[in-house]
Amino acid sequence: MAGLREECGVFGIFSYEPRDVAREAYYGLFALQHRGQESCGIVVNDDGIFNFYKDIGLVNDVFSRERLDSLGKGNMALGHVRYGTTGATDRNNAQPIVVNHIKGRMALAHNGNLTNSYELRRELELKGSIFHTTSDTEVISYIITEERLASPSIEDAVNRAMNRIKGAYSLVIMSPAKMIAVRDENGFRPLCYGKMPDGSYVIASESCALDSVGAEFVRDIDAGEILVFDQSGIKSIRDHCGKAPHKLCVFEYVYFARPDSVIEGCCVHEARSRAGAYLALEYPVQADVVVGVPDSGLDAAIGYSKQSGIPYEIGFIKNKYIARTFISPGQKSRMNKVKIKLNPITGVVSGKRVVLIDDSIVRGTTSARIVKLLRDAGAKEVHMRVSAPAFLNPCYYGTDIDSRENLIACHHTVEETAKLIGADSLGYLSVDSVKRIACGEKGRGGYCTACFDGDYPTEIPSQTQKSRFEKKISESKK
Amino acid sequence: MAGLREECGVFGIFSYEPRDVAREAYYGLFALQHRGQESCGIVVNDDGIFNFYKDIGLVNDVFSRERLDSLGKGNMALGHVRYGTTGATDRNNAQPIVVNHIKGRMALAHNGNLTNSYELRRELELKGSIFHTTSDTEVISYIITEERLASPSIEDAVNRAMNRIKGAYSLVIMSPAKMIAVRDENGFRPLCYGKMPDGSYVIASESCALDSVGAEFVRDIDAGEILVFDQSGIKSIRDHCGKAPHKLCVFEYVYFARPDSVIEGCCVHEARSRAGAYLALEYPVQADVVVGVPDSGLDAAIGYSKQSGIPYEIGFIKNKYIARTFISPGQKSRMNKVKIKLNPITGVVSGKRVVLIDDSIVRGTTSARIVKLLRDAGAKEVHMRVSAPAFLNPCYYGTDIDSRENLIACHHTVEETAKLIGADSLGYLSVDSVKRIACGEKGRGGYCTACFDGDYPTEIPSQTQKSRFEKKISESKK
Amino acid sequence: MAGLREECGVFGIFSYEPRDVAREAYYGLFALQHRGQESCGIVVNDDGIFNFYKDIGLVNDVFSRERLDSLGKGNMALGHVRYGTTGATDRNNAQPIVVNHIKGRMALAHNGNLTNSYELRRELELKGSIFHTTSDTEVISYIITEERLASPSIEDAVNRAMNRIKGAYSLVIMSPAKMIAVRDENGFRPLCYGKMPDGSYVIASESCALDSVGAEFVRDIDAGEILVFDQSGIKSIRDHCGKAPHKLCVFEYVYFARPDSVIEGCCVHEARSRAGAYLALEYPVQADVVVGVPDSGLDAAIGYSKQSGIPYEIGFIKNKYIARTFISPGQKSRMNKVKIKLNPITGVVSGKRVVLIDDSIVRGTTSARIVKLLRDAGAKEVHMRVSAPAFLNPCYYGTDIDSRENLIACHHTVEETAKLIGADSLGYLSVDSVKRIACGEKGRGGYCTACFDGDYPTEIPSQTQKSRFEKKISESKK
Amino acid sequence: MAGLREECGVFGIFSYEPRDVAREAYYGLFALQHRGQESCGIVVNDDGIFNFYKDIGLVNDVFSRERLDSLGKGNMALGHVRYGTTGATDRNNAQPIVVNHIKGRMALAHNGNLTNSYELRRELELKGSIFHTTSDTEVISYIITEERLASPSIEDAVNRAMNRIKGAYSLVIMSPAKMIAVRDENGFRPLCYGKMPDGSYVIASESCALDSVGAEFVRDIDAGEILVFDQSGIKSIRDHCGKAPHKLCVFEYVYFARPDSVIEGCCVHEARSRAGAYLALEYPVQADVVVGVPDSGLDAAIGYSKQSGIPYEIGFIKNKYIARTFISPGQKSRMNKVKIKLNPITGVVSGKRVVLIDDSIVRGTTSARIVKLLRDAGAKEVHMRVSAPAFLNPCYYGTDIDSRENLIACHHTVEETAKLIGADSLGYLSVDSVKRIACGEKGRGGYCTACFDGDYPTEIPSQTQKSRFEKKISESKK
Repeated sequence: MAGLREECGVFGIFSYEPRDVAREAYYGLFALQHRGQESCGIVVNDDGIFNFYKDIGLVNDVFSRERLDSLGKGNMALGHVRYGTTGATDRNNAQPIVVNHIKGRMALAHNGNLTNSYELRRELELKGSIFHTTSDTEVISYIITEERLASPSIEDAVNRAMNRIKGAYSLVIMSPAKMIAVRDENGFRPLCYGKMPDGSYVIASESCALDSVGAEFVRDIDAGEILVFDQSGIKSIRDHCGKAPHKLCVFEYVYFARPDSVIEGCCVHEARSRAGAYLALEYPVQADVVVGVPDSGLDAAIGYSKQSGIPYEIGFIKNKYIARTFISPGQKSRMNKVKIKLNPITGVVSGKRVVLIDDSIVRGTTSARIVKLLRDAGAKEVHMRVSAPAFLNPCYYGTDIDSRENLIACHHTVEETAKLIGADSLGYLSVDSVKRIACGEKGRGGYCTACFDGDYPTEIPSQTQKSRFEKKISESKK
Repeated sequence: MAGLREECGVFGIFSYEPRDVAREAYYGLFALQHRGQESCGIVVNDDGIFNFYKDIGLVNDVFSRERLDSLGKGNMALGHVRYGTTGATDRNNAQPIVVNHIKGRMALAHNGNLTNSYELRRELELKGSIFHTTSDTEVISYIITEERLASPSIEDAVNRAMNRIKGAYSLVIMSPAKMIAVRDENGFRPLCYGKMPDGSYVIASESCALDSVGAEFVRDIDAGEILVFDQSGIKSIRDHCGKAPHKLCVFEYVYFARPDSVIEGCCVHEARSRAGAYLALEYPVQADVVVGVPDSGLDAAIGYSKQSGIPYEIGFIKNKYIARTFISPGQKSRMNKVKIKLNPITGVVSGKRVVLIDDSIVRGTTSARIVKLLRDAGAKEVHMRVSAPAFLNPCYYGTDIDSRENLIACHHTVEETAKLIGADSLGYLSVDSVKRIACGEKGRGGYCTACFDGDYPTEIPSQTQKSRFEKKISESKK
Repeated sequence: MAGLREECGVFGIFSYEPRDVAREAYYGLFALQHRGQESCGIVVNDDGIFNFYKDIGLVNDVFSRERLDSLGKGNMALGHVRYGTTGATDRNNAQPIVVNHIKGRMALAHNGNLTNSYELRRELELKGSIFHTTSDTEVISYIITEERLASPSIEDAVNRAMNRIKGAYSLVIMSPAKMIAVRDENGFRPLCYGKMPDGSYVIASESCALDSVGAEFVRDIDAGEILVFDQSGIKSIRDHCGKAPHKLCVFEYVYFARPDSVIEGCCVHEARSRAGAYLALEYPVQADVVVGVPDSGLDAAIGYSKQSGIPYEIGFIKNKYIARTFISPGQKSRMNKVKIKLNPITGVVSGKRVVLIDDSIVRGTTSARIVKLLRDAGAKEVHMRVSAPAFLNPCYYGTDIDSRENLIACHHTVEETAKLIGADSLGYLSVDSVKRIACGEKGRGGYCTACFDGDYPTEIPSQTQKSRFEKKISESKK
Repeated sequence: MAGLREECGVFGIFSYEPRDVAREAYYGLFALQHRGQESCGIVVNDDGIFNFYKDIGLVNDVFSRERLDSLGKGNMALGHVRYGTTGATDRNNAQPIVVNHIKGRMALAHNGNLTNSYELRRELELKGSIFHTTSDTEVISYIITEERLASPSIEDAVNRAMNRIKGAYSLVIMSPAKMIAVRDENGFRPLCYGKMPDGSYVIASESCALDSVGAEFVRDIDAGEILVFDQSGIKSIRDHCGKAPHKLCVFEYVYFARPDSVIEGCCVHEARSRAGAYLALEYPVQADVVVGVPDSGLDAAIGYSKQSGIPYEIGFIKNKYIARTFISPGQKSRMNKVKIKLNPITGVVSGKRVVLIDDSIVRGTTSARIVKLLRDAGAKEVHMRVSAPAFLNPCYYGTDIDSRENLIACHHTVEETAKLIGADSLGYLSVDSVKRIACGEKGRGGYCTACFDGDYPTEIPSQTQKSRFEKKISESKK
């Protein structure tokens, strides 16, 4: 699925004894790589000394064995993977951000998006502050630092800072002696922690990163909670809990998270499979085979198959070396591009009525190509089913949805879209259903579905400010 | 599946007009990357001038846009991907091999393994020949060159050379004016060709590479056939056809080839699915769910599920960034290593009786880890089914099977193996069945199953020679 | 000469038309490479958009053709080369620093060292400022930004900032529309400007950089002067001129600057040659040949030879590929290390009484090795002459002199030192003479010689603050 | 000096105990880097196992610490540096060449050029041999291998091979148990050996490489000599000694060798200085200052100064970082290019009558630029003196002299040339004098001066063959 990007994954580890925490951060980030492929970084805390490295690139390109070794041992480490922007990439924006200040050193890793960062930035600059990046994380680090000057402890400063920063933030903050996990009052982005056999604690955006280092899942950080890990144990500060409705981004289940992660009590694979089952109920069709678009459509395809009784099959082979930089063919051979990444298995679809499952349609061009691939491979009918509602609104909480101009659903009915992409029929999952995919009753309930239905759970940036801010950012981008 | 390696993939393109054939070779090799990940190379033929580049690394690491551009335009290109050896890699062994000789320039790309290369090499060295690599391909290039001195044409030299070289070889040879595809008399390794919309011809180890450049599959090269492409068209030389029984390596279907490839009339995915179905017939079991080990066990898992009626599920998530170099955790955390590459989806297997499908068991250690992953995730029972017979014999035709010492099936009964890997039951596909997975009746029939049953279709290297040769090679490896 | 480092070189270009200013900055920095070999950076100003790249490494390693091209065209560029620290290098400290602020963008490149940066940093941090580097340049950028909030123009802000920053600074500042050159009130570090045939202006630490881009030298920036280049021409702000005695670092002539540079009216080569002549007057000796230690002792050796009448010769060959990273031999073969970098020409010194000229003795170990090289090559006598006085005091203005503990002159008399390094005699240039090497009468006069005689022209950091500051820096060094 | 290239430097070490010979080869090659900057390689012999690495690039770029370590320990090592071709570089041509053959392994490093390589290559190819490179070294390795089949020992094979190969070759050959140094019958290229304090032997193109590893010079290998080092000591085979007149390339003294090297009893610096003195005698002039073009004109400038009494001065500063890849300015700013590499010291030449010494004039363009630099810096007169005769003929022994078309001396008188380069007068050293620069009487006498006077000491390649061969090579160059 093109046109969508999440803002980052975070990983922290707190050990009671110095050891090779850099390597564990490496495995954790590797498990979270799907949340950000532009840049990554690791900061190791060796008794108050912060050794770090960050650069543009995938985790296993940036961190060679030598690089990891050079970070040394420590009792804490903080890591981050960042999403990829198109065009020029900026090494400066890589995280974690490390701050050296008279009141103490601090490293921050952030996932999410503030809704008042323009105002905060303006306020800070007018006091003489200088920004080196265009990221919200630097704004947060300033606010915490300001509050720190008047606070007895870093967690106190974070608590105060939460009164000023608005929007979506799952943060991990490392001070010389503490590791602190923070989640915004609505809980937009996931954050959980686990425990290793030796008693160390691990904080991560998703539970799959806990698994990768052998940590056992303990629980999600609550919305509004500040959780402090230090030598004396764990402390939960809950002043901001319960102040706002719980609003986890439902798209974490639909697209962002890894299927083996469990978020707020619900396994992502099962949520997607359930989305497929709901789709089968909402849009049944007579067909011979159900195939998913790899990788993100596979889980829902299984759900559709089970619910409908139509056999599940592997319809496409995705080239598994594609994760890396790749030289695109020229414009005239765009069709090939799809075949290079994705090739249909002719024997599976030839002469068949095919149900094709994907997790979204953004501009429609990719979907059109995939439908054509199936037709060229001999499919008799292609019925496309999308395991999420159509995108109609911008997200201010960290999902980088394409512009309204490009979103096919903003300009075309479902029937028109089906025609445009060449499908015999098309169905999007209903908003009602998508709210229930993550085990509705059992879960803590409350999902943000604003990108589908425009129901924003917070104040949103005023249009003028937003566009002005966007302009500013694009200008200052190097 | 660890412990098995194929020897290479080949790709050639013959165009009637000069154009960016390097880029097409790049896409073709990218589609064949699974056949060799150590090194790769491309030779472009620009009206008799051979421009080439080869190096250690994956296709999209070795060939940047600048590198491709530097190869220039041409009307032919020859490419190769080579398998990865453990330990020291040798840039010298990268292919294609380019030969500059008084009788003309020539480039060769080879997939397979000669059975008489020790004798040929010895004979050549005693005449004063010097070898720069340890590869069979260099031996082949010498033999063709020798024959070339007395032959009116290169295809004639190739035809004569085929009387001297024994064993497995799928070759593509490029001379200043011709592209030649050659397959050994038994047809051990696949080789096919296709046609592009503009009339260009493409030769490749697998049809998925034809798809990637938009070429339409024409047919497989026949066993023993020499197929010559030049400005006057295509010419087939069939002097060596029908001289030996057709013996395509059955492991191409089981493991090597990409599921979307069609080899000798049979789709690889379907062959694997059929293997799964046969397994279900041979080793039925009461269970709740069928899961495959990604990626190579997935196709057979679907076949098993369909045949048995036990629901198919996604049991594991494989980290999709793993194709790249990766820093292994230390010895003591080997268990983690599996979780870093492969993580079970707890919700799918917890409390279930699981049928686990993989395509082979080599040493048993990986299988043991995967079974343990399922048990740790709460599986009540684990029934392992292997979609191929057990390895019991060495392969002399290009598959690098682990040593007898390491092969678990050489030392343990099926029951013992099940116990060692921790499975409740274990079943290998029978040799009879594996011979039928590739559409038995419809196919041209005749598969090499020597690694399973010891039935070698050719004379094999004498033990003394073999061990001496092996010693020599390992010594001269840099 | 080991143990001495200068803090950086700066280069700016202001053109009236957009063009390939990045390439000119590249040539300028290449000419200034001797002033800083750790890291480098270039910022191109394309009508207010700042495109930049900076990294660790030499100029021609960091900037490939592609990298330069990616910076695009513009009408201004600012560049910087930074000195090399031992041990861990920090990409973060690379310059120029680029600041994006509500009052406008700004890039700074700095050569020198502030004496009150600890106090300024503390004051800023207590207001909530965050520092990302350990460099004075970031402090300066904060001070200018603070003043900018209350100033009508950037040059006004710079003018005010000069009331607050103390010590040595030669700065070039680029705003969207202006290029500004600034030199501290004492003029510790050199800074000059020139004009290109097309009317563009070039600012550089040394005139050799003007030569490299074909610019004609106009004049030095005066001590305390602010020189503003914009579309309307050049403006000089002289509020800070004449407020303090002129105190150019004399070591610029002795060691830092390139011999072909002309600083404040005096050619560096001639100053060194004059130092050699003074040495010959102060420490005459009966000898057969005068040789200099390449490269920095050669100029003085010529002066000594001319004054004394003893023939000048090439005594050593320095490996010209040594500028690059180099693998050091182990401890036991340290003697070789010198022969790898420097090899004596036996025929020149064998059986001769040799006068050996170098520009400094720091720890004495290198000098001892060089004397031994001459003796091993057959020199009968070795008389060492040093073209500067002995180091006895720390420098607070940007020269990183070795610690007192390591300085041989702090612990040994001249006679003792001669014995320790194995020389038959030794002479340091007197402080009185070194003050006259740069054309005394003709020059503007006034040199800082504090490292030799302890005569600091400014208040120096209080010992407590200094050591605290030093501690802080070393801690926060990553 | 542009337009001239030497073919390579060789280095071998033979130790009686295994140790880090790779590092010593590294230092040796680093000292010989001036003889070849395109590619380099090292082969370590660990009890018959040959570990090697070779690549395009400078010694300290190709060999990192890790790379050297990966070569392991051994009791012999062989190294090579190769000259740089313009345009496409070919990793294949890097040396040493390693040959794995049934009669034993062998590594070769070669400096020189065969005169009958076309014939030998043709003969070998017609027997079926295949060549992978375009280098003479591969031809030599074939001839030795052929002879090896009928010889009791490798030195015997080398001895027989010497009957077949013609032209210039200084070779070092490493077999599993022996290190062999060979020099052609005329002794065109230098080769010497030395002894380390621990009894190890070192063979090198120049004595400066012996110095760099702490070896003491023993003697030059004689023309025609085969010197064998093995566990039983040193053996000299002299069957080819005295068969041809001694004809060391005089250009080794004039340009190729490092000034600190001693070749056949004469120090290179002194030979150059003597050339300068002879120049002063042949072309005296009234002038104020003598300056040399760095680096190769400096030694002769000192000789000219001493003989004439005109003071020697440093006239130019050469950027010492230039050894590395460098981005050239565009065509229109070619003048700058010289200023980037070379900048005159204005104070030294302004208002002066300058004698400018260089070691050659090839096309004249560089000389013209340097003369202009002096004039622009204010020189009143420029008298150019060249410390070698003018090039008029091609070299078949390893010096890559520009084509006749480009050589200015082939088309212009001395007076015309002076005018073309803008000099007030011009003088080339006479052929008679150049023959005496290397201590005439004391030396073994006999120098090849064919490039100056056309007096070829051997049969030269027939014109037809030569041009055909050249064509062939250029075609097969990738």
